[in-house]
Amino acid sequence: MSVVLFGFGGVGRTFAEVLYSRTDVRIAGVFDSGGGVVKCAGLERAELRALLAAPRGGVASSGVGSRGGLEEALECADVLVDVSPPNYSTGEPALSAYRLALSKGRAVVTANKAPLALRFGEFLGRPVYYKATVMAGTPVIDLARGLVGQKVLRIRGILNGTTNYILTRVDRDGLSFGEALEEAKAKGYVEPDPSIDLEGLDAAAKLVILANTLGASLSLQDVAREPVRYLGRVTKYIAEADLERGAARVAPAKLQESDLLASVGYTLNAVEIVTETNDIVVIGKGAGRLETSLALLNDALKALGRIGRW
Amino acid sequence: MSVVLFGFGGVGRTFAEVLYSRTDVRIAGVFDSGGGVVKCAGLERAELRALLAAPRGGVASSGVGSRGGLEEALECADVLVDVSPPNYSTGEPALSAYRLALSKGRAVVTANKAPLALRFGEFLGRPVYYKATVMAGTPVIDLARGLVGQKVLRIRGILNGTTNYILTRVDRDGLSFGEALEEAKAKGYVEPDPSIDLEGLDAAAKLVILANTLGASLSLQDVAREPVRYLGRVTKYIAEADLERGAARVAPAKLQESDLLASVGYTLNAVEIVTETNDIVVIGKGAGRLETSLALLNDALKALGRIGRW
Repeated sequence: MSVVLFGFGGVGRTFAEVLYSRTDVRIAGVFDSGGGVVKCAGLERAELRALLAAPRGGVASSGVGSRGGLEEALECADVLVDVSPPNYSTGEPALSAYRLALSKGRAVVTANKAPLALRFGEFLGRPVYYKATVMAGTPVIDLARGLVGQKVLRIRGILNGTTNYILTRVDRDGLSFGEALEEAKAKGYVEPDPSIDLEGLDAAAKLVILANTLGASLSLQDVAREPVRYLGRVTKYIAEADLERGAARVAPAKLQESDLLASVGYTLNAVEIVTETNDIVVIGKGAGRLETSLALLNDALKALGRIGRW
Repeated sequence: MSVVLFGFGGVGRTFAEVLYSRTDVRIAGVFDSGGGVVKCAGLERAELRALLAAPRGGVASSGVGSRGGLEEALECADVLVDVSPPNYSTGEPALSAYRLALSKGRAVVTANKAPLALRFGEFLGRPVYYKATVMAGTPVIDLARGLVGQKVLRIRGILNGTTNYILTRVDRDGLSFGEALEEAKAKGYVEPDPSIDLEGLDAAAKLVILANTLGASLSLQDVAREPVRYLGRVTKYIAEADLERGAARVAPAKLQESDLLASVGYTLNAVEIVTETNDIVVIGKGAGRLETSLALLNDALKALGRIGRW
C-alpha cells in the first residue's frame, strides 16, 4: 500500500517520517513546487532520507526515483495526501489534484484547508478525509461527524492558535500587541502571509469546514471577518456560526471570565458545538507539524482500510 | 433498509420514534424480556404506535406483526440495535445476539455497555458501532478513534452523570449526600440497581470501552473501584487509566478549583485524553434518552452506509 505526497514542506516531511517509522505504508510519489518524482514500488528508506535532505522545491532535482507527473504517480498509489499550502483564491493546484485522484478511484487525505473551504459541496460524499484541516491535533471533525442526524444550532470557537497566542500574551503577560506579534513571528507561528492569521481567513476556513461537516451549507464568502485586535480582558478571536440562520463571522470579542473559552490560552484551540440536545466543548492543540502529521496518519490508515469505520 | 430492536425500554422507544420521524429506515423486529415480533417488510407507523402503547415486556403479546425469534428477524434486517439493559456478570443475552447478528453478516449498533466492557477484544475489527455507550450525547468515541496511530498516555474523566449530579448538589448547593441521592433517585437518574452508579461499575465500563478504543487492552476486572463519597470541595468521582502501565481505577478525588474537570457540574460528563502530543478535554452531556437515541441514529446511519466513513 502506498500514498502520493502532494507538497513537501514542514508538515509533508514530518508526515513522511511518521509514516515510515510507524507503518509499512510507502510513498510512491512526492511533488513540490519544483516538480515531482515517482517510484511505483515505493521509496526505500534511504531514498526518503535523500529527499528529506533536499531543499524546498528540490524534489525533482534530488536524483531520487524518476521524474514524473501526478497522474503517473496516482496509477500506483492508493491515496493522495495533500500537504500543500492553502491558496484561498482558487484552491489550486490542490483542487485539480483532488479531481484527478478521485477520477482514478483514489482517496484524498488533506491538511490543506483551501479546497474544502472553497468547494465543500463538490466533495460531499466522496472519499476525502480532512480531520487535519481543523484543530489538527484534536479530532473534532470526527466528533462532529458523530453528530450528523441531529440538529446543530451553532458553533463558536477559537480556531486560530497564532492569534490566540498573541492575545494571551497581551492579556495575561502584559506584552503590547506589537511585541506579541513579533514574538509569534519569531516562534514561526505566523503564516508566510500574516493576513491569513490576522485577518481571520485561517479561522474562517476552519469554521466553514466544520459547519459543513455538521450539515450546514456555508461558504468562505459567507463569513464576515474583522481583523484581530485587543479589546481588553478577556479578548478572544472568536469564529462563530449560527447554522439556523446561515450567519457566520470571525471577530475579536470580550468574554466573561466564567466563559469556558476564556480559559483557553496561548496556542490552544477550542470549539463549542450547540445541538438540539447538547452543548459540547472540545479543547486541545491545533496544528503543529507532529500533531498534523498524526491526524494525516489516522486518516490515511482509515482511507487504506487499516482502521474500521465503526 | 431496516433494523431489529433488541430491547424496548425508555431508550428503545425513543430511538424508534426518532428513527421513524427522521429517516425512512424501518424496524423489522422488536424484542424485549417477554419475547419478540417480526415483520420483514418493516413496521408501519400505526404498528409502531401500537407497540409504543404496549407495557414493558409486552411486545410479544401486542398483536403487532407475527411472533418470532431473533434469527428470523435478522434474516430481513441490516442492523441489530442493542438497547437492552447491561448485564455485567455475563453480558447476556446481548452477547449471544451480537454473535448471531455478526455470523449473519449484520452490523451491531449498541448503547449497552456490558458486552464490550466484558469482551472488547472479541469484537475488535468487527462492525460493532458503540458511540452510544460512552458519554452518549457527546461522540467522544469518534474523537478517540481519530487518535488511533498515536500513543495515548492516559485518560481521566467524569463518566457517570448520576454521581456527578449528587456530588455537585452537595458541593455547590449544600445538600447532604443522602438528600442528593434521594433527589437523584426521584429524578430517575439512578440505575434500578443503584450500586452500578454508586460503586463505579457504570464509570468503569465506560473507561474500559474508551481505553480499548484508544488501543489499550484493559478489561473490567482490571479497574479498581471505590464507592462514591464526598471528600470536601471539589469532589469528583474520577475514572482514570494509565494506558502505559495498564492501571485503572474509579474513585472519588478532591480536585483543585483550577482543574478544568472541577468546573464540570451536575449531570455533565467530561474526559481528558493525554497523548504523546496533545492534552484534549471534551465536556458535554452523557446519556439521556434523546441524546442516546441520536447517537444510535448516527451509528445506524453509518452502519447502513448513509454517512460516509471519511
